Amino acid sequence: MIRTVVVIYSGGMDSFTLLHRALAQGHAVHALSFDYGQRHVRELDCARQVCRALAIPHQVIDIRALGGVMAGSALTSELPVPEGHYQEDSMKATVVPNRNMILLSLATGYAVTVEADAVWYGAHGGDHAIYPDCRPEFVEKMDAVCRVANYQPVAIEAPFMGSDKARILSEGLKLGLDYGQSWTCYNGRERACGRCGSCVERLEAFAANGVNDPLQYEVAG
Amino acid sequence: MIRTVVVIYSGGMDSFTLLHRALAQGHAVHALSFDYGQRHVRELDCARQVCRALAIPHQVIDIRALGGVMAGSALTSELPVPEGHYQEDSMKATVVPNRNMILLSLATGYAVTVEADAVWYGAHGGDHAIYPDCRPEFVEKMDAVCRVANYQPVAIEAPFMGSDKARILSEGLKLGLDYGQSWTCYNGRERACGRCGSCVERLEAFAANGVNDPLQYEVAG
Repeated sequence: MIRTVVVIYSGGMDSFTLLHRALAQGHAVHALSFDYGQRHVRELDCARQVCRALAIPHQVIDIRALGGVMAGSALTSELPVPEGHYQEDSMKATVVPNRNMILLSLATGYAVTVEADAVWYGAHGGDHAIYPDCRPEFVEKMDAVCRVANYQPVAIEAPFMGSDKARILSEGLKLGLDYGQSWTCYNGRERACGRCGSCVERLEAFAANGVNDPLQYEVAG
Repeated sequence: MIRTVVVIYSGGMDSFTLLHRALAQGHAVHALSFDYGQRHVRELDCARQVCRALAIPHQVIDIRALGGVMAGSALTSELPVPEGHYQEDSMKATVVPNRNMILLSLATGYAVTVEADAVWYGAHGGDHAIYPDCRPEFVEKMDAVCRVANYQPVAIEAPFMGSDKARILSEGLKLGLDYGQSWTCYNGRERACGRCGSCVERLEAFAANGVNDPLQYEVAG
């Protein structure tokens, strides 16, 4: 069934793949990004360029003023970004309180405005253990409330829930995607650092697929 | 049971009453308001003054930049505010897509930050027929998702769900509240207009209680 789908698209590799899955399935796609004052503004730039090249509508919602609620997150503050593997302790430092519900609520409002049937976001199996708002239980309950919150029902779907990052990348490679158009690094420098948790996970996914990452890194992967 | 409660407090008569109910029950209260560029900035001023006088913490979250999502609402645009009784057609013009879910999601993030057990908001029986996100079904499903979205469960409660505006006012009058400290009018002028849907409902609630509204109006109630 062809639907109209709002895809929450950060510019990172998971949502980049998700966006292309939606297009490959023939859906009418509206891309939606959030500017929350992240250091890695490169990610947003990637998102803009990709949507322009694909000629799909792309809305960026500025949520920088929500800093009061989002206090304490390493993604928006001057704290050092945790390096190496994502561990529960270091990841809690990058958790924004109720982040995914806030973003999905805004996306659902946007879906009502553009008369979309569903909102897709890139939560995946690798996130389960760490982020409560990436678990299947959260997605099910969020879907239930978004179907009754407006005159028009909106479905919430996380199509990669059964996948991990390596499998997502494998799907994208089969679609022939150029991952040089995606950005993952948490540090906002010219090249990806290769050391933050996000870079490490990305490089592992490429290694698992036996493929070189087309991005340039400060350190060798 | 004494809890820590975030009360979504607009400055209007319903949430003014709700705030005082929470205090009367002995809860530790954090008041939370939203600046969405409403014309009736008097409402926010009322909220600030009341919280200062009560010496309770009060956070205002600036969501004006969310205008892109909130497009089409008479509350934030230059459209004329509907007058007279709230009817389904005219009220749809003042509906912000997914408004309550967005506000409750932000409030839940704030509740996590201040380690509160619950978020209260002033949805009431009189709103059911018109606003999907004021119905008991919505509150139940929102409560269910907010309990699993973060490391710490947050309950969503609408204590006035079984009341209408007249009964809410009756409760506040029994608590001895001064409704001159609340503001309802949608038009941002010096005195309440007495004609917008919000003023009309407020004046009806006072009439039902056989009490004069202490606010000054442009027209006689």
